[in-house]
Amino acid sequence: MSFKTAPAANMAEIAAMVERREVGYSLESAFYASQEVYDLDIKAIFGQHWIFVASEAEIPEPGDFVTIEIDTQSLIITRDDDEQIRAIRNVCRHRGSRLLEDPCGSIGNIVCPYHQWTYRADGELMYAESQSPSFDKSKFNLKQVHVRTVGGLIFICLADEAPADFDEVASVIEPYLRSYRISEAKVAHQTDLVEEGNWKLVMENNRECHHCDASHPELITSYFPFLRYSEEDVTPRMRPTYERYLAATANLDNVCSINGVPRELRHELDTRPTGFMIMRLPLDGDGASFGPDGAQVCRKLIGDVTTPQFGDLSLHMQPNSWFHFLSDHVIVFTVLPIGPDRSLVRTTWLVHPDAVEGEDYTIEGLTGVWKATNDQDRVLVEKAQRGVTDPSYVPGPYALVEDDVESFINWYVRRLHDYLEPHRESAERLGHLNAVAAQ
Amino acid sequence: MSFKTAPAANMAEIAAMVERREVGYSLESAFYASQEVYDLDIKAIFGQHWIFVASEAEIPEPGDFVTIEIDTQSLIITRDDDEQIRAIRNVCRHRGSRLLEDPCGSIGNIVCPYHQWTYRADGELMYAESQSPSFDKSKFNLKQVHVRTVGGLIFICLADEAPADFDEVASVIEPYLRSYRISEAKVAHQTDLVEEGNWKLVMENNRECHHCDASHPELITSYFPFLRYSEEDVTPRMRPTYERYLAATANLDNVCSINGVPRELRHELDTRPTGFMIMRLPLDGDGASFGPDGAQVCRKLIGDVTTPQFGDLSLHMQPNSWFHFLSDHVIVFTVLPIGPDRSLVRTTWLVHPDAVEGEDYTIEGLTGVWKATNDQDRVLVEKAQRGVTDPSYVPGPYALVEDDVESFINWYVRRLHDYLEPHRESAERLGHLNAVAAQ
Amino acid sequence: MSFKTAPAANMAEIAAMVERREVGYSLESAFYASQEVYDLDIKAIFGQHWIFVASEAEIPEPGDFVTIEIDTQSLIITRDDDEQIRAIRNVCRHRGSRLLEDPCGSIGNIVCPYHQWTYRADGELMYAESQSPSFDKSKFNLKQVHVRTVGGLIFICLADEAPADFDEVASVIEPYLRSYRISEAKVAHQTDLVEEGNWKLVMENNRECHHCDASHPELITSYFPFLRYSEEDVTPRMRPTYERYLAATANLDNVCSINGVPRELRHELDTRPTGFMIMRLPLDGDGASFGPDGAQVCRKLIGDVTTPQFGDLSLHMQPNSWFHFLSDHVIVFTVLPIGPDRSLVRTTWLVHPDAVEGEDYTIEGLTGVWKATNDQDRVLVEKAQRGVTDPSYVPGPYALVEDDVESFINWYVRRLHDYLEPHRESAERLGHLNAVAAQ
Repeated sequence: MSFKTAPAANMAEIAAMVERREVGYSLESAFYASQEVYDLDIKAIFGQHWIFVASEAEIPEPGDFVTIEIDTQSLIITRDDDEQIRAIRNVCRHRGSRLLEDPCGSIGNIVCPYHQWTYRADGELMYAESQSPSFDKSKFNLKQVHVRTVGGLIFICLADEAPADFDEVASVIEPYLRSYRISEAKVAHQTDLVEEGNWKLVMENNRECHHCDASHPELITSYFPFLRYSEEDVTPRMRPTYERYLAATANLDNVCSINGVPRELRHELDTRPTGFMIMRLPLDGDGASFGPDGAQVCRKLIGDVTTPQFGDLSLHMQPNSWFHFLSDHVIVFTVLPIGPDRSLVRTTWLVHPDAVEGEDYTIEGLTGVWKATNDQDRVLVEKAQRGVTDPSYVPGPYALVEDDVESFINWYVRRLHDYLEPHRESAERLGHLNAVAAQ
Repeated sequence: MSFKTAPAANMAEIAAMVERREVGYSLESAFYASQEVYDLDIKAIFGQHWIFVASEAEIPEPGDFVTIEIDTQSLIITRDDDEQIRAIRNVCRHRGSRLLEDPCGSIGNIVCPYHQWTYRADGELMYAESQSPSFDKSKFNLKQVHVRTVGGLIFICLADEAPADFDEVASVIEPYLRSYRISEAKVAHQTDLVEEGNWKLVMENNRECHHCDASHPELITSYFPFLRYSEEDVTPRMRPTYERYLAATANLDNVCSINGVPRELRHELDTRPTGFMIMRLPLDGDGASFGPDGAQVCRKLIGDVTTPQFGDLSLHMQPNSWFHFLSDHVIVFTVLPIGPDRSLVRTTWLVHPDAVEGEDYTIEGLTGVWKATNDQDRVLVEKAQRGVTDPSYVPGPYALVEDDVESFINWYVRRLHDYLEPHRESAERLGHLNAVAAQ
Repeated sequence: MSFKTAPAANMAEIAAMVERREVGYSLESAFYASQEVYDLDIKAIFGQHWIFVASEAEIPEPGDFVTIEIDTQSLIITRDDDEQIRAIRNVCRHRGSRLLEDPCGSIGNIVCPYHQWTYRADGELMYAESQSPSFDKSKFNLKQVHVRTVGGLIFICLADEAPADFDEVASVIEPYLRSYRISEAKVAHQTDLVEEGNWKLVMENNRECHHCDASHPELITSYFPFLRYSEEDVTPRMRPTYERYLAATANLDNVCSINGVPRELRHELDTRPTGFMIMRLPLDGDGASFGPDGAQVCRKLIGDVTTPQFGDLSLHMQPNSWFHFLSDHVIVFTVLPIGPDRSLVRTTWLVHPDAVEGEDYTIEGLTGVWKATNDQDRVLVEKAQRGVTDPSYVPGPYALVEDDVESFINWYVRRLHDYLEPHRESAERLGHLNAVAAQ
């Protein structure tokens, strides 16, 4: 940690980079590698927007909690005695000690390990020993941040004022998610993977499947290769596969119609503060899940789902999460920044609450494909990080099929632009002064 | 290492934090976590004040030495041929090589391992090969810093001009220490423990026992729980213990009187540059030492001590040391800063020179309680470091029983205030300029 | 990575240190330890001068490559289909991924592992999928840097305009190197050693043998101790050795004359941008190589060499390399900066292409002395790094026999002086402003 001696000069430099960013091209090196941009990202992106942190399935009972770290900020996500979900700063109000260290667990009250200040699960200070008679307990409750759930997914916002469009987004995506009953699901497995790359490179990697053919041999057996294809792109050699794709599409249309679940693509990745995209894709082979050739990986279907051929419901949320909802399980992913060149990818697999390990599913069978996929992506992200840190790197053009990467970067650049607005004039003034001095 | 591009701006920012510090509250986050404050601490605290570095028992013979590192500064503490104790900069005057790497040992001359420049144990350059005829040997002696001893404890000061009140402090505490004859003692054991926390959090932790009940199960068996209690605080349930406490106190008064050793508390922790506190406490149970229930841990009493019931003579020195003098051994502690979030705690156990390991004491029996206590404290300090680095942390109120923590912080803040005095006006000017630019 | 908020202020500070550097003394601490000077070294030294990176022996066939890292810059040194040696930036022009990770290998085309952009071995972009119709392939070839070879040694220059005196230097040293036929040699062994010291301390260590007697017991058995001695320096005790030295010198003169190879010392270490020194020394004992007492370490002589008593041809190149050419093998050394206090020393042993391991040489026999010597030097460099980082360090006087260290530092300081020339006036202006503010 370091306080900034010339934040205004930094802001001016970053603002200039934001303004000169060329559409359709990757970002300048400093966006992926500098401490200054990273610090701004923590404030302007992770400090201002709705961040997916966990699913309700992880804290089913009052007192259950998970802790989550966003850079140096630690938060307790818990369900209080009234079953209300809370997001509480994990910092004692006495001398600042971290309160809970475990990644998850269950508590009655929150008791500080240092001098036993004792808080209720909703953050209220109950007891503090040896304070002066004038001590006003009510001024030392744990700090809370905004929290919202949609379809069993928990989002928090660290800002004083959270983006207002979350409710609108929630109302759009909730009908898609309802069938899966996430809040009642069971956590089958969770992994934390550290990638030596900037969080934006992790996200860019997730936002395109242009690299899938060469890098994800396990994953691609479930997918048809026709995303963004039109009829005339189909070569004769591809024809049999394309026929399968058309049949699977028609079947998925039918299933959605029968079950009364929405089918259409909603693509609002860079047109609003709470950017998102949701779509349902038919799968190849068995058409059920991420097993080999689309095979089912859990015998018990999840939630209210009644047929294995329910497709892959894919949800992308800006800035840091994505989700796959299959007929038999759900996978949720969240990217948590650790440093300019370091990120954590947390992946959680959810199944029906009655699904029994060893009987309905195995950990290996359920998680194998995405464990492999995550690790393959880690290797690519790390190569990209090393490359963009090379001073000879210059931004390059995204491919046509990388349009959602462009959407992500558009969204990001727009957020920085807006965040820097109030500082722009003075920043430019200082930038001008520096430029003069440096001539 | 980095040279500072805008030290004046840093100074202004720190000076502002110093001035706005609220009495009775912990410090702002940057004091515990920023590189800039850490760099200032090294200059303004460790570079200006008397620092405890070792006991004379560690260098009994001429040529014996210990090396000590204060941030990136290495010093050789040695006894020269005239038995005078010296503190010498561990840097060759030729091309700057570190001279001695071992933590302790014995030397004749100090010979540089690189090109064999040879110095006497008092730092005088004796020999340098292949220098030009005009080379003036007398200009290349090793640099020395101030050194003083009191009761066998060695203090150094890196400043050009050392705080003048050391002699006064020494004359106060020397009569307390005399009985233990530290300079003739034997080093039974020494440990170096790295704690991932700012040195001030390590000191704050040491300056209160508010956390002892919950965190130090071994240590508390030796202590009465009545420090700072008055008669009316004693509940009926505590009455039998309190009766034991009164008896032990009376006995200790008696022992001190018979032995002609001072008994009264001297509390000057934040009223002078060389802040200190010395007090003698009766112990519970056997009343002798830090064994289980106050049991003796070395069969041979130390120095001139004639009775096991000699209490715990406890000495606190600002900024970085504390000491426990028991009837059968002495423990000395020094905290050495390594980085903003990293500190070394060196603990040394001393016994009577004739005490024989395995016969009079065992390492485990002698050191067990404080090894456990140090490690328990490390865990607490590290939780505190993680917490105060969280941007949501704000200073909180010290408890009434944390008054010596407040004394430590008061002393510290006052030292920074004084140190920054000469820079304040220009710092404020620059701070003002920056504030204008950042608007 | 960090972008600099006040580069002009840094430049001013460094420029001032450059100007006040005292001739004959080691550099100020910041030159060896600060991030700011390190960053400038990467630009002003490694970014502007000819850097030795590999020998042709390492890439004998078209498609063979080695990768090399200079700070965060990665380069591919390869031989293209026309046998021309290329130095190519190891950064994909699409989204910046590192292309080749292996330290060496062989390729047909260069295919990016991320999205399979495909380049020819000369860097030309052949194929990029899914780009827009307006995409102009010819604008996205891999970037190349200057490359030159002399006597089989490959040098690159990262600057737009490379120092023009390289050809002149090459024409001087090429006749010395010719006999060894490096481009046809075989790589017998290569080691990478990380030293926790600034690259300039590694170079300073290499530029003198004042430390050899005490630190390199293996190496010194091959050398006469008379470098820079005159007749009158020889003591009676040294006389027999000196007689051997005179005989070996006369024999070496004779061998050089017979073989028509240049014998004289060329010392241009600090008089030109491409500073160098080349000299041939007779060896003691068997007079052949770096085995015990000058013993041969490879039965087959290298290149066109016809006699074991061919001396040690020693080449020093600024800023980062040195070479020993023996009758039976060649050793090349290059120092690559990793950080202010971290450097890589790459050492490569070359032998005759027909020399067979286990028959003509063993790895242990061939490399033992310099593996030991490198590691002994690492220890010294690390002691020096710790010492010069101590705030009590001040520059000290080089010994008379450290004149090539002085030459290295002279060359370095002159390069910084020239590089900072265009920035000096504005830097001074800003430095003045800061000085005013800090008063």
